[in-house]
Amino acid sequence: MDIYETLTSDIKINMAFGYPGPEPFQHKKISELSHKFINQEGEAVLQYSPATGLSYVKETVKNFLINKGIKINDEEELILTPGGTSSIYYTFFSLLNNKDFIITESPTFVGALNTIRFIKANILPIDIDIDGINVYALEEKLKQAIENRKKVKAIYLNPTAHNPTGVIMSDERRKHLIEIANKYDLLIIEDDPYGFFVFDTDKRFTSLKTLDTEGRVIYMGTFSKILAPGLRLGYIVANKAITDAIESLITMTAINPSTLSQFIAMYAIKEGVVDETIENARKVYRKKRDVLIEALEEYMPKGSEWYKPKGGLFAFVYLPKGVDTTEMLPTAINKGVAYVPGRNFFADGSGGNAMRINFSYPSIDKLREGIKIIGETAKEMMKH
Amino acid sequence: MDIYETLTSDIKINMAFGYPGPEPFQHKKISELSHKFINQEGEAVLQYSPATGLSYVKETVKNFLINKGIKINDEEELILTPGGTSSIYYTFFSLLNNKDFIITESPTFVGALNTIRFIKANILPIDIDIDGINVYALEEKLKQAIENRKKVKAIYLNPTAHNPTGVIMSDERRKHLIEIANKYDLLIIEDDPYGFFVFDTDKRFTSLKTLDTEGRVIYMGTFSKILAPGLRLGYIVANKAITDAIESLITMTAINPSTLSQFIAMYAIKEGVVDETIENARKVYRKKRDVLIEALEEYMPKGSEWYKPKGGLFAFVYLPKGVDTTEMLPTAINKGVAYVPGRNFFADGSGGNAMRINFSYPSIDKLREGIKIIGETAKEMMKH
Repeated sequence: MDIYETLTSDIKINMAFGYPGPEPFQHKKISELSHKFINQEGEAVLQYSPATGLSYVKETVKNFLINKGIKINDEEELILTPGGTSSIYYTFFSLLNNKDFIITESPTFVGALNTIRFIKANILPIDIDIDGINVYALEEKLKQAIENRKKVKAIYLNPTAHNPTGVIMSDERRKHLIEIANKYDLLIIEDDPYGFFVFDTDKRFTSLKTLDTEGRVIYMGTFSKILAPGLRLGYIVANKAITDAIESLITMTAINPSTLSQFIAMYAIKEGVVDETIENARKVYRKKRDVLIEALEEYMPKGSEWYKPKGGLFAFVYLPKGVDTTEMLPTAINKGVAYVPGRNFFADGSGGNAMRINFSYPSIDKLREGIKIIGETAKEMMKH
Repeated sequence: MDIYETLTSDIKINMAFGYPGPEPFQHKKISELSHKFINQEGEAVLQYSPATGLSYVKETVKNFLINKGIKINDEEELILTPGGTSSIYYTFFSLLNNKDFIITESPTFVGALNTIRFIKANILPIDIDIDGINVYALEEKLKQAIENRKKVKAIYLNPTAHNPTGVIMSDERRKHLIEIANKYDLLIIEDDPYGFFVFDTDKRFTSLKTLDTEGRVIYMGTFSKILAPGLRLGYIVANKAITDAIESLITMTAINPSTLSQFIAMYAIKEGVVDETIENARKVYRKKRDVLIEALEEYMPKGSEWYKPKGGLFAFVYLPKGVDTTEMLPTAINKGVAYVPGRNFFADGSGGNAMRINFSYPSIDKLREGIKIIGETAKEMMKH
């Protein structure tokens, strides 16, 4: 069973999905506000829009992001896109050529790896720890690559509430990374779908975009986790040369992000629905994270390891060496539980004993039951 | 001013847009049905969906298309996409390699030409007349191309209510085209955004997909003109090998077409809103077409030529030889009128004296005024 089948199949306890937990969704409020504005605005809601969004929607999103601490120097730096995945695709497609190198965290988001491979660019994976990507190792590998005449273009990462591990990059490393990018003339792609869901502190970590003084950071986020994934609406903050290139691609491939979705996002920001969704999600996902950690401690075989996620939707669990989570998956699915095998998150095929767990999506009872089943399945595998 | 600026600028009488005329849009009904189903369905509307659409939405769209005479052998042949432009992009991207050839009508849709060029494939343009693409000329050029060892993969066309001319391919030529495709092992990309708007007869022209017995036709359509462009929702009917390839691309680049838009389309079909939009649009656009033809006859310089559009949103007008519509555009825009210069619709740079007029979008008064201004501007140009 391939990873995308796992992600969409009808499985009792599906912890493979990238789906956000649904409890924070405000569908009644979205229903009310849609009713009102479709009636009031008429044609504008149903018609095409400019490729990167209507100016008044962008103005609202811009103010929202500035309030959350994202630096936007000029309104031309902000564009809307048809969702976070499209932002990654358009950005990589604009920037990367065949044979270019891009630095990623290791592990990193499957979708980013697949897109880089699709473009036939190369990946330079850098280990992470509890404080995010190891910037010293990064600089070492970068120097080697440059010595070997490799063309390294950019660094792709989730600094806050990393997918799949839930770690957060420290402030010190953020500053260091910006220095490295400046020194070696690299772009930074800061993919931030989960940055609003930091669990154990009310502090907002300073985004790399906000630390950026040379226009090197391409910041991307999405309404999928702070309002509704079904809208397919994301945003990018980057310098105009980059947003212009992406605008051309959107025109050719999609015309524009759904106009209706743009209006929903605008009214949802204005009427406080987005902030409410964020606050609810933080609470619900934190509670589920705590349940997950308890269940992992209770049910996982001795020698298993994980980072306690500091934010986001996911945990990355290493089983004892020798257990192969890809081989184990069909048995787990037979027992009604799915996860994503760890290998998918590594460019170099490592992570064979790891798995990604989405703890935000299942109910608390299912989460506990799912981890129990995975633990038992792993222990059985270890007997053979 | 580049074509995309013309298309989005604030111009008093904009006949350059691809926008459908807004009068047929049913925004009050869409507002009502959205209000109801977002409340009722809750999470499903706001969540991700499978890459090519929810099964129950696809079932509704399938029945709708079958009722309209489109042959769908198997439910796996139908997929939903994020709009008609994305369908073209995904299809061309899946099928065409660098250096492949694709046959198109000449003139043809700008977006298709741009996408083919972007992929670095080649265009083999074939003239059209009042009965659509000249299939005899097509077979001749195809034979030559094959003799010259060119790899011709597919034919892209709008058989019904062609963009930009509004002509309709005759039944006889449709059959002949299928025979040619079978004989030379070609795919046919039948792009049908305007097929529901045939003005002078209630006859539905048989789609190439329905005539196809060998799985060679990729049929594509969109909700943009029969419900609302702002939804960004389209559909493709094609054999499973092709829909599978497109599904992978959608997963990587967009995740899924807006789930909310899928629900709106489903309920709008079920509650008759789509059929009502189609019937209204046919009437309104036919009336505007008649006004356009009257105005062209009254105001265009002697020696101008056009096909009276049999359907769709557009007319393609040739001014007397020597008038350059690209050169003329800035003057027309200064006077408050925009059109798309004809060269954009030809692969070989011809069409310098032609222009595309969207007659569906302006009000009847603006349409008359716009054509008057264009006619006067052309006559002035001819004096110099």
